[in-house]
Amino acid sequence: MAEKALASKLRAIVGDRYYREDMEARVAHSYDGTPMLQALPDGVVYPASTAEVAAVMKVLAEHRVPLVSRGSGSNLCGGTVPLEGGIVMVMHRMNRILEVDLENLTATVQPGLITAEFIAHIESLGLFYPPDPSSMRISTIGGNIAECSGGLRGLKYGTTKDYVIGLEAVLASGEIIRTGGKLMKDVAGYDLTKLLVGSEGTLAIITEATLKLVPPPRAKKTMLAMYRDLYGAARTVSRIIEARIIPATLEFMDNPTIRVVDDFAKLGLPLDMEAILLIEQDGDPEAVERDIALIEEICIAERADRVQVAADREEAERLLTARRSAFTALARLRPTTILEDATVPRSKIADMVLRINEIARKYNVTIATFGHAGDGNLHPTATTDARDHDEVHRVEQAFAEIFEASIELGGTITGEHGVGIVKAPYLEWKVGSAGLDMMKGIKQAFDPHRLLNPGKLFAKETRKRVVLQHE
Amino acid sequence: MAEKALASKLRAIVGDRYYREDMEARVAHSYDGTPMLQALPDGVVYPASTAEVAAVMKVLAEHRVPLVSRGSGSNLCGGTVPLEGGIVMVMHRMNRILEVDLENLTATVQPGLITAEFIAHIESLGLFYPPDPSSMRISTIGGNIAECSGGLRGLKYGTTKDYVIGLEAVLASGEIIRTGGKLMKDVAGYDLTKLLVGSEGTLAIITEATLKLVPPPRAKKTMLAMYRDLYGAARTVSRIIEARIIPATLEFMDNPTIRVVDDFAKLGLPLDMEAILLIEQDGDPEAVERDIALIEEICIAERADRVQVAADREEAERLLTARRSAFTALARLRPTTILEDATVPRSKIADMVLRINEIARKYNVTIATFGHAGDGNLHPTATTDARDHDEVHRVEQAFAEIFEASIELGGTITGEHGVGIVKAPYLEWKVGSAGLDMMKGIKQAFDPHRLLNPGKLFAKETRKRVVLQHE
Repeated sequence: MAEKALASKLRAIVGDRYYREDMEARVAHSYDGTPMLQALPDGVVYPASTAEVAAVMKVLAEHRVPLVSRGSGSNLCGGTVPLEGGIVMVMHRMNRILEVDLENLTATVQPGLITAEFIAHIESLGLFYPPDPSSMRISTIGGNIAECSGGLRGLKYGTTKDYVIGLEAVLASGEIIRTGGKLMKDVAGYDLTKLLVGSEGTLAIITEATLKLVPPPRAKKTMLAMYRDLYGAARTVSRIIEARIIPATLEFMDNPTIRVVDDFAKLGLPLDMEAILLIEQDGDPEAVERDIALIEEICIAERADRVQVAADREEAERLLTARRSAFTALARLRPTTILEDATVPRSKIADMVLRINEIARKYNVTIATFGHAGDGNLHPTATTDARDHDEVHRVEQAFAEIFEASIELGGTITGEHGVGIVKAPYLEWKVGSAGLDMMKGIKQAFDPHRLLNPGKLFAKETRKRVVLQHE
Repeated sequence: MAEKALASKLRAIVGDRYYREDMEARVAHSYDGTPMLQALPDGVVYPASTAEVAAVMKVLAEHRVPLVSRGSGSNLCGGTVPLEGGIVMVMHRMNRILEVDLENLTATVQPGLITAEFIAHIESLGLFYPPDPSSMRISTIGGNIAECSGGLRGLKYGTTKDYVIGLEAVLASGEIIRTGGKLMKDVAGYDLTKLLVGSEGTLAIITEATLKLVPPPRAKKTMLAMYRDLYGAARTVSRIIEARIIPATLEFMDNPTIRVVDDFAKLGLPLDMEAILLIEQDGDPEAVERDIALIEEICIAERADRVQVAADREEAERLLTARRSAFTALARLRPTTILEDATVPRSKIADMVLRINEIARKYNVTIATFGHAGDGNLHPTATTDARDHDEVHRVEQAFAEIFEASIELGGTITGEHGVGIVKAPYLEWKVGSAGLDMMKGIKQAFDPHRLLNPGKLFAKETRKRVVLQHE
């Protein structure tokens, strides 16, 4: 529990009801979507305005007490576990859409807004906000910004970063800054907006965001292609891009994922396929028809065993279910599901999947792989049991080797889930020691007393690199 | 001139021929595209490789001598004037396209490559690199990255920042870092890639860039719309966006610009118009036809006096000439041309143009305004004479007031030209003192001894704000 003087100051700011130290509140905010990580905060605060956030932060800065700001905690990197205790700040009361500006095609929102609710509102106005992380029904816009969330539409439309054009944020000192604006071009100094997106709550507390909206596509079409040969699927991805087609969605599932998904959702998928691609194109009706026809040709030329173009939205939704239920279906298998996030250049997808399978065999663990093939963002997912320490250790070794393979192939340790606690020991592998030093320097500039989400991004020690053995 | 020990070390790295201290070389690199700014460097170095850049930087760091890295120096913010002397590093020898990767749709290039040459090569491969700053025939990719250059296609396609996905750079210490990669998604730590884009050579020396390419549009159409009423033109811009159309280009010229351009290029433009919009749409042929027809309707509804859709590419090029020759035409009028770069939310364009005209009258100076209406990026351009100190002083006062008006309307002090020397006294107006402190902290982390392009971005003093008087 927080010291008495601090607690009474926090209560004075937000009101008795919105500062809690009871065990229920503390336990509820001791973990997030990441398995096997937990730490108790001393208290939980629920601010209602930027002014309250700033006042809370000023008090915490005086008392040198750390703060973890969070939305729904759906992240998968331990990003909102209060590792060093202190106060958890829950943004859910700040959940309003402050403005949709139809002339400038922008929306200004508070961070606690649920992403899917925002998207539904925007679509009801005939507009489009593309970032669609799988967590969107529970995740918040603020959380999406903190983690720079991606999603299924990233290939064509980019990620959260590409849509955040202005921010209001509270610094570790309690001061309020405003970056960017309703501006499509702004080069006044370093780009603090893009720096704060993906900074995982370690540089500032985001209290308001101005988001870019775009016109919605006028048509959409969905198809599945199934392959006995993994390389056929991978070549299809490359050939589509080489044909100058950027599909809205280009998703991949490997054989273990297909089996589990079919068992879960009863879709009648063929269980002897090595890979399924789920492909969507959107845009003008004529262009969509042309692209889908071309993609179909490419799939067949690359020896897809079956190609199925959805006749209508209903059938399309059924096809999408296959991919969307991958995580849920896998999570049923064993008590603990660890969903990872290695990303490679899209030309390296088949190599990466084979490496993952090889590594899983080596460590005798079960890893199914699915993900966003179009942008090389794979989610190798281990099903295990947290109580089996030996197996969990082997899973960790396998993932370390997977990250190393990813970097070897020109990839990264995380495409859209963030570093948090989970990837911190590997960050130096990707960015190098000089790059890591620059990041630490930025952290120091923003948060000299290590009050904002301490213990994240930067590990005490970088993990030793495994020497890969290729049998 | 640099001290002897330093000079001989630099010669040992790059060879005698590529380190110069003669007056010709020093004078040639004492200025850039910005009028009325000049400072002599002590020497000029022309490295041929990243290793040479790193070695040069290590030596300069030892000797605590500042460095300004530059391409062609076409910037308009004094960004490459060596304010504090030291060494100018010219990147022109590092001008190769290292790779075009058709599977990943990326190009990896050296910084000294001329932008237009890069674009021509990319287009010859049937691909598209959208950023098209007006300087592209002389400017380099490295310079574009340093300044985060925009251009005419920014509205639909974004600016340089949106296409840089990986960088190699040399730090102030001489260490080499690599950020990003051929990756459409990468959230491994703070986004150093986007931070370096637009950092104006103050954080690192860019030695290699990986750029995202996109499929080219299949068709393009161009039109002009002319208005007697400025607000009609401005409303047209808003109505087009509200109709969910994002044109590839949506350019604006005011009456003074129209007059000068017509006198220069003999296009037969009507001289009694208050505004001309130049509009281009690209994409699939059917969509382009539909959008242009809709835009034409909107122009007529907003009382355009004349609307002219180009029948073919030749006519389109003629229409484009009007906008492209704006700067050249204005530059003929008087000895000194100061092209500014205020940017507002696009809904505020008419207000901003009227404010600019009002301010020009108040200070009795000549300012013509043209620019990228679609993204609110206006280029108020003063024609004056550097030898007339009184007039130049009035021009400066007028611009200070224009920047203030821009911020008041929710805009920024620079949309695409950068801060450099020219805007440094105004940066705090846009980003606030806390924002400026964070930027200084970032600078301190990257360049503790102020060796990289010192004197840029951060002014010794922020200019006092003018109190706007609205008559």
